[in-house]
Amino acid sequence: MTHYRLHCFAQSGNAYKAALMLQLCGADWEPVFVDFFNGATRAPDWRNAVNDMGEAPVLEIGDKRLTQSGVILTYLARRFPDFTPSGEDEELEILRWILFDNHKFTSYFATLRFFRAFMPPDSYAGASAFLEGRVRSAFGVVEKHLAAREWVVGDRMTIADLSLAGYVYYPQDEHGIDIEHTYPAIDRWRKRIAAHPRWAHPYTLMPGHPRPA
Amino acid sequence: MTHYRLHCFAQSGNAYKAALMLQLCGADWEPVFVDFFNGATRAPDWRNAVNDMGEAPVLEIGDKRLTQSGVILTYLARRFPDFTPSGEDEELEILRWILFDNHKFTSYFATLRFFRAFMPPDSYAGASAFLEGRVRSAFGVVEKHLAAREWVVGDRMTIADLSLAGYVYYPQDEHGIDIEHTYPAIDRWRKRIAAHPRWAHPYTLMPGHPRPA
Repeated sequence: MTHYRLHCFAQSGNAYKAALMLQLCGADWEPVFVDFFNGATRAPDWRNAVNDMGEAPVLEIGDKRLTQSGVILTYLARRFPDFTPSGEDEELEILRWILFDNHKFTSYFATLRFFRAFMPPDSYAGASAFLEGRVRSAFGVVEKHLAAREWVVGDRMTIADLSLAGYVYYPQDEHGIDIEHTYPAIDRWRKRIAAHPRWAHPYTLMPGHPRPA
Repeated sequence: MTHYRLHCFAQSGNAYKAALMLQLCGADWEPVFVDFFNGATRAPDWRNAVNDMGEAPVLEIGDKRLTQSGVILTYLARRFPDFTPSGEDEELEILRWILFDNHKFTSYFATLRFFRAFMPPDSYAGASAFLEGRVRSAFGVVEKHLAAREWVVGDRMTIADLSLAGYVYYPQDEHGIDIEHTYPAIDRWRKRIAAHPRWAHPYTLMPGHPRPA
């Protein structure tokens, strides 16, 4: 029995934030496949017994169950010294970026990609221009922040980086944002994270890719 | 000179989260008006010197400056015993709801209300149905959660309540969601918060209401 069990699936960048953290820390963990595309997170069993917010990821640690990627990252950062904040100022600056990520960076980017990669075009036409505008605004804030620095907070990788990086490795044809040429600082930063010797792409780190035809 | 200076404006429910916390705690604070509708948070001075995320609220404490309502609430909760979490489990459960609020509850509701209350109708037609669907989904999660409990976490008011309550006191004609009749548990909960002897409505607690014609 592994110490950490992460309910996740390959196409979820929010799950990837937690999976990558466990992977980079060399934690004793295993993925548990969530059949999202067949409705697993919308089923009453999931909502009533696993996560009332109806989302993945969920991290199981013995009898404890944590949801929300930002909570899982915070919990793990306190237990793996490479990621433990140096004090309250750093902890709050990390939280600041995790909240920005949840509110404006991952949220709009993940939703835009979900529509473009997994839904029929006529189901999201009205939302697409709105979401892309929000994505470009949030990417602009992060691009400017990373232009003169290597990591989001301080001088080493923190969970703020892992939160913001949830969706940036998915192929461009899934979301339509040309990160490499439009956001060069974000592109260098995502490559910096990927240079970690234990790094793995979401499609290899988590189960469920490719999806059955 | 007051101990806490909160950069805020009456129409910002995100600023209200912090203002209400300071108010309920009886903190030594004052509001500093942010002229959002005349572009204050989009100005280079604000982005470069005050908040690189281009948002309100900002809390000043001497030389320290905190941004993101969730960071400000976390910082204050550690300093006002009525709101200090009882341990890590409660702290993480509070964070879980603050993240949900930032990602799906306040975020979509505040954006829908911003469009409906402050923008010309033709500027948001494409986004409106998308946002309202997301609002109703997030409100459904919170309604179900509050149906059998008085407070979002544990058995007393916490910053999870104050985060989720950021926008729920603005008039229905600003956002179009009939909270009283459609979400009765949320309606009872917002009235429970408003029963606090120091509670004040956002339009009286913060400067800038009504807006000049």
